[in-house]
Amino acid sequence: MKYLGAIDVGGTKTMIGIIAQDATLLGKVRFLTYTADCYIHFSDCCTRFKKLLAELDLTMNDLEGVGINMPGMVDAATGVLLQASFAGWYNIDVKRYFNQMLGIENLFIENDVNACAVGELIFGNACDNFLWVTVSTGIGGAIIINRKLVYGHNSCAGEIGHVKVEYEHPAQCSCGQWGCAEAQGSGTAITRMFAEQVEANLSLSALIAAKNLPVDAVSCALLAKEGNLIALGVYKTAGKYIGRALSYAANLLNPQKIYIGGGVADSLDLLLPSLNEELKKTMVKPCAGVEIEKTALAYDSALLGAAALVLIKNRFTL
Amino acid sequence: MKYLGAIDVGGTKTMIGIIAQDATLLGKVRFLTYTADCYIHFSDCCTRFKKLLAELDLTMNDLEGVGINMPGMVDAATGVLLQASFAGWYNIDVKRYFNQMLGIENLFIENDVNACAVGELIFGNACDNFLWVTVSTGIGGAIIINRKLVYGHNSCAGEIGHVKVEYEHPAQCSCGQWGCAEAQGSGTAITRMFAEQVEANLSLSALIAAKNLPVDAVSCALLAKEGNLIALGVYKTAGKYIGRALSYAANLLNPQKIYIGGGVADSLDLLLPSLNEELKKTMVKPCAGVEIEKTALAYDSALLGAAALVLIKNRFTL
Repeated sequence: MKYLGAIDVGGTKTMIGIIAQDATLLGKVRFLTYTADCYIHFSDCCTRFKKLLAELDLTMNDLEGVGINMPGMVDAATGVLLQASFAGWYNIDVKRYFNQMLGIENLFIENDVNACAVGELIFGNACDNFLWVTVSTGIGGAIIINRKLVYGHNSCAGEIGHVKVEYEHPAQCSCGQWGCAEAQGSGTAITRMFAEQVEANLSLSALIAAKNLPVDAVSCALLAKEGNLIALGVYKTAGKYIGRALSYAANLLNPQKIYIGGGVADSLDLLLPSLNEELKKTMVKPCAGVEIEKTALAYDSALLGAAALVLIKNRFTL
Repeated sequence: MKYLGAIDVGGTKTMIGIIAQDATLLGKVRFLTYTADCYIHFSDCCTRFKKLLAELDLTMNDLEGVGINMPGMVDAATGVLLQASFAGWYNIDVKRYFNQMLGIENLFIENDVNACAVGELIFGNACDNFLWVTVSTGIGGAIIINRKLVYGHNSCAGEIGHVKVEYEHPAQCSCGQWGCAEAQGSGTAITRMFAEQVEANLSLSALIAAKNLPVDAVSCALLAKEGNLIALGVYKTAGKYIGRALSYAANLLNPQKIYIGGGVADSLDLLLPSLNEELKKTMVKPCAGVEIEKTALAYDSALLGAAALVLIKNRFTL
């Protein structure tokens, strides 16, 4: 059985991996994404990809294909990156570039969150109808209906990070609008809420100083797991907002499961009580059975997702 | 070309029609839905259907098939009504019953809002990716992706009437929860808000009395069209809430269009200013081009939808 090549170009870091068809990671490298010029970065990806292959005593001929994730809107049928506006990349023919530079025909380009969903489908033993939600610096989503990805009219379906979950006291989102799920429940939002609490609470700031912790979502989770009520409260609030966003999606799409990935998924236990409580208040009865689960793919979900693109027969909705 | 039979069993009224393949309505009858016993009602439907056929000098042999709408969750593949909880109808093999009673094999059962979406697709010249939203006594939705209906895990996708659009001062919904789109933006909600204004405002109640108008959504629309600021304000509020619900769906599904049907669609012009303003505030940019349109099928959308079930080749998402 041949191996799978995987390139996950993220907003800040890029991962490259060679993966066996049973999802075993043979090797991976990680480096910063050079956003200033995508072609310089893609060229670097190709060099590192070939180097990793050589280190594993493999050649391109040992690969079934290569899957490549992009941090933006992708026309998956043509392999063109439509936009990754944060980086200023627009209308890049990613497939053609990597076809030529890697000299391999069997190549698949996909949005990174969509790829995670495909990874869950292929390697995570997922159900047929589900939502994949990344909760990290931002919040992103991908929709699987009857084992196919949903793209929408212009390839930007799944924007669960920008549904509004707070109207009265909204925080501003990176998108410029107010009260988005991403502004209220992402890792960035958790850090912001935690910082506000540290600022306002002397004993908490003393605790943080004593433990020599940075004021971020990970520290907040650490304290919450120790039973700190303020830190628990921050995760409770984030869980409530994430629950609101998920309820919209679950009422509309009636998925069997929602898989949560991204860095904040490590703290899913802290989010789940308020998240499920909010779901109970906001779900219409016949859809209410939806199960919230942590991704089975853990930290490598995006890289495994890229590899899975090579294996899935037809990922497009008809 | 053969004709199409259509039976639209609604929550309060039932419509039966015979329709040509160009959507011309040859004849229809309308009567109350007898919810106390579905089999008595279905039997009545069959009698009236055969009578209408005979009046048109037609027989079952002149029909290509019959489409039947149910006011609840349907397993479209088997033709079983899973539940219409308001009527207490559960797990009724509708297809089998009508097969036997009408003596026709080519028979299609569907949820009523889903049927409207199929009607828009077949007779309304609809685009490939859209949402169909009924705004009437309640609010219901149907999702079309690449010209297929989305059913979800247990056939209840499209519940846009029960996404939450108001958290701080929510009204109670018929579903028992609070702040649902249906509780804040349906015809029922418009009537409730209008009644509150009539109650609180002496000159408005005098105007209503002078014009001998009932206190309902239609009267409110009438006054709003005359420029009455209070009546306009009620529609403005409803439009804002409908806009919130549509923004969730549009951010998640990235449809090209959203078609609005149901009684309140006649007053869509009154809703659109605040609805579009809310969309502008709540849509992520790449999805923001979504167009809101009144259904092309007008009052007979559900009946035409039932007929369209006969014509569509494969309405299921793969």
